[in-house]
Amino acid sequence: MQDDTGPGGLDAFFSPRSIAIVGASGDPNRIGGRPVHYCLKTGFAGPIYPVNPTRDEVQGLKSYPDLDAIPGDIDLAVLAVPSERALATLEACGRRGVRAAAVFSAGFSEVGGEGAAMQDALIETAARHGIRLLGPNCLGYYFASSGACVTFSSSFDEALPAKGGIGLITQSGAYGSHLLSMAMARRLGVAAWVSTGNEADVTVAECLAHMVEDPDVTAIGMYMEGINRPDLLIAALKRAAALRKPVTIMKVGSSEVGAKAAQSHTASLAGSDASVGAVIEQFGAIRAATTDEMFDILYAATVAPPARGDRLGILTISGGAGVLIADAAERENLRVPPMPEASVTKLLERNPFSSPRNPVDVTAHALNDFDLIAENLSEMVQAGDYDLLLAFFTTWVNSKKLGPRLRDALLETTRGVGRPFAVVGLLNDEVSKAYEAEGVLTFEDPSRAVAALGALARYARAFDRAAGLEGTMPEIADKGLPSRSMGEAEAKALLAAAGVPVLPEVVAGTAEEAVTAAEGMGYPVAMKIVSPDILHKTEVGGVALNLGDAQVVGSTAGRMLSEIPAQVPGARIEGVLVTPMAGAGVELIVGTQRDAVLGPMVMVGLGGVLAEVMKDVKLALAPVSVETAEEMLRGLRGAAMLDGVRGAPPVDVRAAAEVVSRLSILAAANADGVESIEINPLLVREDGAVALDALIVPRE
Amino acid sequence: MQDDTGPGGLDAFFSPRSIAIVGASGDPNRIGGRPVHYCLKTGFAGPIYPVNPTRDEVQGLKSYPDLDAIPGDIDLAVLAVPSERALATLEACGRRGVRAAAVFSAGFSEVGGEGAAMQDALIETAARHGIRLLGPNCLGYYFASSGACVTFSSSFDEALPAKGGIGLITQSGAYGSHLLSMAMARRLGVAAWVSTGNEADVTVAECLAHMVEDPDVTAIGMYMEGINRPDLLIAALKRAAALRKPVTIMKVGSSEVGAKAAQSHTASLAGSDASVGAVIEQFGAIRAATTDEMFDILYAATVAPPARGDRLGILTISGGAGVLIADAAERENLRVPPMPEASVTKLLERNPFSSPRNPVDVTAHALNDFDLIAENLSEMVQAGDYDLLLAFFTTWVNSKKLGPRLRDALLETTRGVGRPFAVVGLLNDEVSKAYEAEGVLTFEDPSRAVAALGALARYARAFDRAAGLEGTMPEIADKGLPSRSMGEAEAKALLAAAGVPVLPEVVAGTAEEAVTAAEGMGYPVAMKIVSPDILHKTEVGGVALNLGDAQVVGSTAGRMLSEIPAQVPGARIEGVLVTPMAGAGVELIVGTQRDAVLGPMVMVGLGGVLAEVMKDVKLALAPVSVETAEEMLRGLRGAAMLDGVRGAPPVDVRAAAEVVSRLSILAAANADGVESIEINPLLVREDGAVALDALIVPRE
Repeated sequence: MQDDTGPGGLDAFFSPRSIAIVGASGDPNRIGGRPVHYCLKTGFAGPIYPVNPTRDEVQGLKSYPDLDAIPGDIDLAVLAVPSERALATLEACGRRGVRAAAVFSAGFSEVGGEGAAMQDALIETAARHGIRLLGPNCLGYYFASSGACVTFSSSFDEALPAKGGIGLITQSGAYGSHLLSMAMARRLGVAAWVSTGNEADVTVAECLAHMVEDPDVTAIGMYMEGINRPDLLIAALKRAAALRKPVTIMKVGSSEVGAKAAQSHTASLAGSDASVGAVIEQFGAIRAATTDEMFDILYAATVAPPARGDRLGILTISGGAGVLIADAAERENLRVPPMPEASVTKLLERNPFSSPRNPVDVTAHALNDFDLIAENLSEMVQAGDYDLLLAFFTTWVNSKKLGPRLRDALLETTRGVGRPFAVVGLLNDEVSKAYEAEGVLTFEDPSRAVAALGALARYARAFDRAAGLEGTMPEIADKGLPSRSMGEAEAKALLAAAGVPVLPEVVAGTAEEAVTAAEGMGYPVAMKIVSPDILHKTEVGGVALNLGDAQVVGSTAGRMLSEIPAQVPGARIEGVLVTPMAGAGVELIVGTQRDAVLGPMVMVGLGGVLAEVMKDVKLALAPVSVETAEEMLRGLRGAAMLDGVRGAPPVDVRAAAEVVSRLSILAAANADGVESIEINPLLVREDGAVALDALIVPRE
Repeated sequence: MQDDTGPGGLDAFFSPRSIAIVGASGDPNRIGGRPVHYCLKTGFAGPIYPVNPTRDEVQGLKSYPDLDAIPGDIDLAVLAVPSERALATLEACGRRGVRAAAVFSAGFSEVGGEGAAMQDALIETAARHGIRLLGPNCLGYYFASSGACVTFSSSFDEALPAKGGIGLITQSGAYGSHLLSMAMARRLGVAAWVSTGNEADVTVAECLAHMVEDPDVTAIGMYMEGINRPDLLIAALKRAAALRKPVTIMKVGSSEVGAKAAQSHTASLAGSDASVGAVIEQFGAIRAATTDEMFDILYAATVAPPARGDRLGILTISGGAGVLIADAAERENLRVPPMPEASVTKLLERNPFSSPRNPVDVTAHALNDFDLIAENLSEMVQAGDYDLLLAFFTTWVNSKKLGPRLRDALLETTRGVGRPFAVVGLLNDEVSKAYEAEGVLTFEDPSRAVAALGALARYARAFDRAAGLEGTMPEIADKGLPSRSMGEAEAKALLAAAGVPVLPEVVAGTAEEAVTAAEGMGYPVAMKIVSPDILHKTEVGGVALNLGDAQVVGSTAGRMLSEIPAQVPGARIEGVLVTPMAGAGVELIVGTQRDAVLGPMVMVGLGGVLAEVMKDVKLALAPVSVETAEEMLRGLRGAAMLDGVRGAPPVDVRAAAEVVSRLSILAAANADGVESIEINPLLVREDGAVALDALIVPRE
């Protein structure tokens, strides 16, 4: 595996100066014929060298018997050969100074056994010669800018995709091909497409890093089953967020059957699906659940300007549609604030039949007076100052008679204001193209329009947040944890050293010592007899709670220390344990757990059975800042608990977030030695938070 | 409002023998011109009588100056007149014995004030003459079977919808028109379409009842904002479920802004959105969140055969797509069980590169041997015996060369087996039509294919359940509740009379009486001093828990009755209250609440903060059977609590369900006098359930 991962590291693949195609075929429908045919079709500028010992000419190009016979330098070699010939071909590539090899051949790690061994040999050979390797078992790629269409996907058979800003990266060849064909069927503009196959060397993460820096790519969609280089993926996501370039990822394998199927047909470890999903969102990307969702996001992100906020203004000719759209907005976490009163009054004077509140319903009366539409929309843009705009005009949109006039009315006041705007109505390609040329989105289903606008608002929030992603990272005095088993007391002491508040505990041998300890802690305190020989402390009067002053503490300690030895003859009495009463608050469970692929993840949930039964937890890759931790806590479905229910006061979420952050830093610093840390419960009070119990499990 | 709601009640609208169109226009694009034009286009068989005093002829038909001048009987009158002329026209309809009037005119209850008064006059006039009234402020309707295309929607301008089994019912005219146009753009076959407008008389519920009985309609989609006749809606849904006819409903107004907008532009009460949503699902329909979802369901329900179960078999040429599809199946609550081992062995022998487990991945090797596809699919149908089938073949599906051969291979083994089957790949109209002609669904996005199959499985379950909807209805001895305020004790006594278990409570005056009471209850018991003068019972030793035998009960009662009077001189002591210890279990909250539109709804949730903070509750219209109540309990997100977490034993869900059912019967029987009943908590134990506290609130 190479680490030539800086910008330009994959240029020899995606912008090669020359291409040699080993196994080139004269038939443009064969695996070795397609890349030749496609590169001729795109008008690839550099030389193309077909290699085929049985022919002098391939698709009109001079053919060479082997790589050694090629006269010029070779940047990229395409290996369209049977798997058993791949290794020898790669050796030949090394001799010729090839920089990048795209290996179409299948029969490697995906079939296991001998195939995996052959793949190891490929990796070793490539590394020895300094060749970057894509695949094996990959379908290749396409970059519109360079004309490199190095693939045998049949999706390019009929036509090339329209030019545009979308970059697609996929581990699955067949599904990647499907994605490309779907993009073409939807008339989406595609800048680049890559299929990574077995990822023996180049991973989706590096392709992402490449596209993030590529100015021709303005939004990126990824399809993945496992993560081979989480470090590179996270770095690329961070960079995308810093450049405010939208990334949406379909990560499959969330179901039990799906995860099993994924494991059986890829060689890659998947990481826990929940962890991967959390990391995608943590670093500013959006996880898409369906293919349609991914394409709607990519469409919106490449056609419309970026969003600056989440306030949606809705213009409609149908009250019913307005209701539906407002509902959808709530589901997508968009706000639908009302129009200013002055605007309402003004617009009502102009059209008493309208309802210009937001949704702004101009009603079908606008049919006779298109100026109404422009006036209402202008008021929404200027006075309402909405971040996002949506207009519902159903069949007016594609009407031959009304359509162009409607478009003029809609664009008159929105052109140049730089806000995402979706027009919803009946469509045809011509109508959609006319709007899209002005940066306006078109949809038939209003709910999908709202979801796409919602995604743009989510990116705006995520990129703003990512800009301050590091946030406040508390200083931790002692970051070292022993990599061996330890009891509750030791675990608590180690957490305390890392700045996690725990309750003080003092073992007092006399009533006086107990009083001194209690005075130092503040009242009320709890007291427990300490003896290895007494199991049921309550039965012998060995537990006392809520002791409120020195006198009660002294007399209770005196009683326990004098009476209990008499009650249990022969018991060794070590003293009484004094500890402050924990007080009232909300119990959280906070922990870290090493993900096999991603490393230590930090988890927060509400205590009791909520985290367990309701699966109401939030995950993030450790370490997290106090701000991120607070966002995780506020993001719990049951977060209302933190604000106080049934008359309880709100609790100190910031203090809890600080514990979460400290714990995450500790886990990250001890990633090699520690499997998991758990604080359960973390009691969050009106003022402060305290760990009542803790467990640290070393890595096996 | 009429109650001529039996089958055939709306025939005069939807299958009229003759139609008079008042306000008929010679211009086929005007409101009064479109219905004439459309009915001529559909070839409506009966006479069409245009009424227009200024013309002798309208669109080639003889025109009449008024209704009185029409020679024959008039079944249906269409009122395309200004609102101020509607009432006089309706009177004229009465004189002529018109049976049904479709009123396009706007300016009635939707504008409030004078408009509402005019609408009341319309209702009175129609009732007086026995005329059924659709609208006012409606867009009309279309029934393919009769050719009645009585609408001014522009959606019919270019063409009529393809014939097919879909019925669409909509309150919103503009969104209804949009729905129809979307259906046409998707080539969906439409049997009927109705817009109900202000629903002065005919409601969506009656239109649903009509379409449920119409053999030409095989699946129904509804769009609604409010419910005017919940009784009729529920009856129609029940009938649809009994006939196993799928109904899917978009109910809008779930958001705060949406609900407010809905209220401002319709005159109808909405009922609580959660209650309406619960009722939709309770009676076997599916609530669709988006327009695309509704159409996908209608498409599946009209093209594919009904499902018999929820076991999905997946055939694919892409491992990645298989993973994605398995994930989607889990989200849709479909099972993806593995193929039988014998089949796996057999299929692997035939094609060692394949992975025939389910997902069954035949891999791209099938390209060279299409028999493989048929063999694998046949094994899935025969040995796997899956209820639902999905095949992913990406670009092969629409390939000119491969497509027809693939279709033959896929249909060869599935034709006639009568199971829903979705083919996923790149599509064009021709390809889709060829599959649909054989009852096979086609999709480009695999997730949408799974969701559509999932909906068919949901209908199968819902219809089976509805067949036994009444289930076990417990007998309730005393169904009458006083319609006045009552305290906890009285509420508990009334619930006990209705068969809800409550803890027995006895006030004993002596130690002997206390022992007798405890003996009758069984141990352990709790004991409390009863005195109006003692507020803090614990402080005077007036509370004792977990008393385990007669001796302890006797001595504790004796102590309380003798010592406490001495401790609190002058306190009136009424005795000691003896009650069994409630024991361990899971706390539920169970209640009923009158919905303004639907009547008493019954609610279940987990106790503590779960119901409140996590909003984890299930609702249903009261009364519910024990079986339905148990389904509600098992449907809670936190239902795992009932099976016992952290080593707790499973609790008696059936007993809890019986309480829920009894409470719902009680609420339904007292719908007029009682606002709400709450049992909080209902303690569900390993064996039995008991109400620990209860509140009954009379209706104001």
